[in-house]
Amino acid sequence: MTFDQLKSYHSDRSDSICPGHPEIENEGIEVTTGPLGQGIANAVGLAMATKNLAATYNRPGYDVVNNTTWCMIGDACLQEGVALEAIQAAGHWKLNNLVVMYDNNQITCDGSVDLCNTEDVNAKMRACGWNVIEVSDGRYDVDAVVQALEQAKASTDKPTFINIRTVIGIGSSVENDAKSHGAAYGVDDVKNIKRNFQMDPDEHFVVSDLVYDFFRDIKPRGQAIESEWINKIRAYEAAYPELADEFSKRVRGELTADWRSIIPAKEAFSTNPIATRKSAGLICNPLAAALNNFMVGTADLSPSVAMIWKDKVDFQHPDLKTECGINGNYAGRYIHYGVREHAMAAIANGLAAFNKGTFLPVTSSFFMFYMYAAPAVRMGALQELQAIHIATHDSIGTGEDGPTHQPIALASLYRAMPNILYMRPCDTEETAGVFTVALEAKNTPSIISLSRQNLEQYHQYSSREGVSRGAYVFIEEENADVTLLGVGSEMCFAVKTRDVLREKHGIKARIVSFPCQRLFDAQSLEYKRQTLQYRSNAPRVIIEAYAVNGWERYADAGYSMSSFGKSLPGKDAYKFFGFDENLIALRVAELVETVRRDGIESLRGEFRDLNISGHQQH
Amino acid sequence: MTFDQLKSYHSDRSDSICPGHPEIENEGIEVTTGPLGQGIANAVGLAMATKNLAATYNRPGYDVVNNTTWCMIGDACLQEGVALEAIQAAGHWKLNNLVVMYDNNQITCDGSVDLCNTEDVNAKMRACGWNVIEVSDGRYDVDAVVQALEQAKASTDKPTFINIRTVIGIGSSVENDAKSHGAAYGVDDVKNIKRNFQMDPDEHFVVSDLVYDFFRDIKPRGQAIESEWINKIRAYEAAYPELADEFSKRVRGELTADWRSIIPAKEAFSTNPIATRKSAGLICNPLAAALNNFMVGTADLSPSVAMIWKDKVDFQHPDLKTECGINGNYAGRYIHYGVREHAMAAIANGLAAFNKGTFLPVTSSFFMFYMYAAPAVRMGALQELQAIHIATHDSIGTGEDGPTHQPIALASLYRAMPNILYMRPCDTEETAGVFTVALEAKNTPSIISLSRQNLEQYHQYSSREGVSRGAYVFIEEENADVTLLGVGSEMCFAVKTRDVLREKHGIKARIVSFPCQRLFDAQSLEYKRQTLQYRSNAPRVIIEAYAVNGWERYADAGYSMSSFGKSLPGKDAYKFFGFDENLIALRVAELVETVRRDGIESLRGEFRDLNISGHQQH
Repeated sequence: MTFDQLKSYHSDRSDSICPGHPEIENEGIEVTTGPLGQGIANAVGLAMATKNLAATYNRPGYDVVNNTTWCMIGDACLQEGVALEAIQAAGHWKLNNLVVMYDNNQITCDGSVDLCNTEDVNAKMRACGWNVIEVSDGRYDVDAVVQALEQAKASTDKPTFINIRTVIGIGSSVENDAKSHGAAYGVDDVKNIKRNFQMDPDEHFVVSDLVYDFFRDIKPRGQAIESEWINKIRAYEAAYPELADEFSKRVRGELTADWRSIIPAKEAFSTNPIATRKSAGLICNPLAAALNNFMVGTADLSPSVAMIWKDKVDFQHPDLKTECGINGNYAGRYIHYGVREHAMAAIANGLAAFNKGTFLPVTSSFFMFYMYAAPAVRMGALQELQAIHIATHDSIGTGEDGPTHQPIALASLYRAMPNILYMRPCDTEETAGVFTVALEAKNTPSIISLSRQNLEQYHQYSSREGVSRGAYVFIEEENADVTLLGVGSEMCFAVKTRDVLREKHGIKARIVSFPCQRLFDAQSLEYKRQTLQYRSNAPRVIIEAYAVNGWERYADAGYSMSSFGKSLPGKDAYKFFGFDENLIALRVAELVETVRRDGIESLRGEFRDLNISGHQQH
Repeated sequence: MTFDQLKSYHSDRSDSICPGHPEIENEGIEVTTGPLGQGIANAVGLAMATKNLAATYNRPGYDVVNNTTWCMIGDACLQEGVALEAIQAAGHWKLNNLVVMYDNNQITCDGSVDLCNTEDVNAKMRACGWNVIEVSDGRYDVDAVVQALEQAKASTDKPTFINIRTVIGIGSSVENDAKSHGAAYGVDDVKNIKRNFQMDPDEHFVVSDLVYDFFRDIKPRGQAIESEWINKIRAYEAAYPELADEFSKRVRGELTADWRSIIPAKEAFSTNPIATRKSAGLICNPLAAALNNFMVGTADLSPSVAMIWKDKVDFQHPDLKTECGINGNYAGRYIHYGVREHAMAAIANGLAAFNKGTFLPVTSSFFMFYMYAAPAVRMGALQELQAIHIATHDSIGTGEDGPTHQPIALASLYRAMPNILYMRPCDTEETAGVFTVALEAKNTPSIISLSRQNLEQYHQYSSREGVSRGAYVFIEEENADVTLLGVGSEMCFAVKTRDVLREKHGIKARIVSFPCQRLFDAQSLEYKRQTLQYRSNAPRVIIEAYAVNGWERYADAGYSMSSFGKSLPGKDAYKFFGFDENLIALRVAELVETVRRDGIESLRGEFRDLNISGHQQH
């Protein structure tokens, strides 16, 4: 980074590579940070990546992967839940290649830290399974800091926390004051600071020769280390050609096997009803078994999310022997993240950012709890990191767990969020399509939204190619009176409503399956018009047990939810909220009648909420 | 709860008061729990409520408030970030009226807890400032449990953590097994369990006389305690009539002063540009100063959120003397939540749920970080708890902090979420309207979304009454060619675009201010038609620097964001993404031209994204 680039910090230059927070787009930045607590959780993922690669590819005499992850944090990070989750997990995994340097200045925006935190942080870190090193004077005692870093690297079998006491704004007039955090010092105070450190107060962007000299040998030193590593790799290739070939694929960011051939063809799927969470297992588990890139994990919902493949090995410290009989192995690729959804997603970002493409992290939980994980899922989208989030129990069909566990509004967040694919497949074939899209999306995370309950299979209609277009004609009907938009776990209501419309109301309905808005938005205008038939006299009705917000772009009316859910068995919860083909057909028939009477143009600008009875009940 | 009601657990009865998780609607349930970690954070809020009321109203000989908060948690809660944040905060506040009983069975859904957590929890709790009591046999040693509860209540100056070793599924065939967590035991195993505990295996819903006898005196005992308290209150009323009057208002859930008279009239506001975050301070701070109900807090952003009123006192333990010179006082009503957004919102739910209406919690942070807090904000909406969330820095106008801090999609979540008001006022007058709505919404939380940057004041157009209708005509124009929908921090673009349209394009634009979709949805069809003029030939264009998802209901076209933001000074960030009145006017003029050519009906079903250039730049 040149002085000119440094000067672009907080400037109006849109080509600045020195933004307000570090951004991954710029060379030398491993992860984008800024939202507090994300960075340390990313660091845990980076350290896990090293451990897993080393356990998988290192051989005696050939430690082809052995780096240390260094992470710097402040007082604020140590208060964020996501950091506290990640710290607990890193201690459990005994990641001795992770060193966290704590810039302990005891100041946050509000003032001194003792306004809100008075814990014994060293004792707490030790209780979480960390090694603690203290540096009492982080202002001037450089030797003590260097010694601590060396000690940390040589360290024990635990991650290391270096607690370095520092002073914020040192040498300025706002030394040890919260004011030195958020605002610029101003011209006079900058002069003060420079005077205090024996620098010329009137010179700017100057680095002394002493410092230049110290850093001058960095380039040759780095080149020497790189050459040494490349030689090691060459010898490794000779000694372990197959392993080296796979390792080299990983380094190049390629998947290690032909994943397309692993996803089963439609004919392989049963036509019996099955929950899409189980469909996802049918597709993801063979992929995970075959591809060492996959790091699959769950926030303590293994029995529910169906992501366990045959002979899967847990990622655990080699010394661990659990009460339930698991032996540890860092080469394992199934991660028990614990009940830590937020850290799970942030750690997955670290895995995905580690030499991008080397790992493909898969996380899993109930969809509702991707609200806990949302800030980290968003950071993955912002950083263009591929990850697959398996989000099961995705509607009121979740049932007895009740309104706390039934997502209503969450899909609106992920459908609006830039650079993420929120996809709701309606059966196993569509689930195959969704995984294909997710695997192809090298710079975009995906959320695969799945049912708890069994769903009808629509082999005659459903299509993985259709999924790749976001929406497609599911059941065509000439001169249709209405187009029903069916989605994921609620597709069955669209199909059954179509039957009732035909049989009881003499109304002809066509059905469009709509697993992903973002993918559909990317299609040509012509395809969109063909699919949704904007210009016909057939109104379009979306049927989904979520808040309808956002569907107004694609539909004239919606049969949806506007309240939270209810604790009832899944099928009864649907009934309670009016999700019943006879009720839906009745309201759709009224809409068709309105259009016949007043013309399709009468619908412009007045989106119709058809599920009025269901809403009032709550 | 009768046996009949107990039998409705997990049943298809929609009148069940025994749902899958405890729900606040049912008598005797203090807070709705289920999403892990929320409950313990709620408990911290409940305990704080007691401390604050006691410090405010108790007098020597009259401890009118002195209850203990008892909270039961499991292994999973102790892994959730929100719980870890709340535990840290409770230790800091030395809430010795809070007792957490840990049902330590070392089993979660995935299996034994040592799969994902091997910390020394007792040492960790002590490091966080908690008193720890251990009960080694929570299966049969009832005396030890009772003793621990008594010891906890008599306890020290710290909150107490009772670590009770238990066995899940005790007496069943899946004892100490994860299987006993999520699934029913089945008929045979229930018989086993009953046999193991000397009960008749064929009898159901039977309680022995021994148990009945033990509990028989609960009612008279409770009545005696209540009578004693009522007598105490009567004596207190005689001794401290004014204090007792205010206390009685609090108990009845009333605000303690005439809040309407405290909100300044429009005339009192300056016409100089001001950030709405500062406008909010002008309105909220006098309310907080006058009304003891207000418990205002911030997630470490005091200097940014402007919620400090003159002579405010911090809520802190009385013994605390901070480095920055604050003396503790439990009667204080300004809460330094620390950098713990999620716990802040969950603790606020506890405050709001404490004898509902006694407290009105106000939280504050950057809007972006209400993504961290979202699961708790949602729980407040679900529980119908009034709270005011002050969400500042609400758009790309946030500037240099960059895309990590600039919300794009988050408003789509809160606009879709049931029972919450997401409101974006455009100036100080609208901010007054927004607070009026928030204070009237006794069963609904509000998010007040505010600018970092200074905004024009529109005294001639803006109206607090208009805000209460969600949207209203801001600038009328007869025979307008287009209706511009202006919102909050971006209203200035609507107003300036109108000028450019008139001057450069000869196009007449009217403007609707649209601070809240949910409030507008509740208006009459007639009002909606008058306001948005659906039936005219004037297309409606929403201008907002967010993802447009959801606006399609109200608009035919949008000038919005479809990428993440960028680190630039606020005004440059707007420019970078095409938020410039000349550019906007150009695109709006093209839209008007299209309508003139093809008719307004050509827009039906094809929402137009006008800000194409801005999106491509990123």
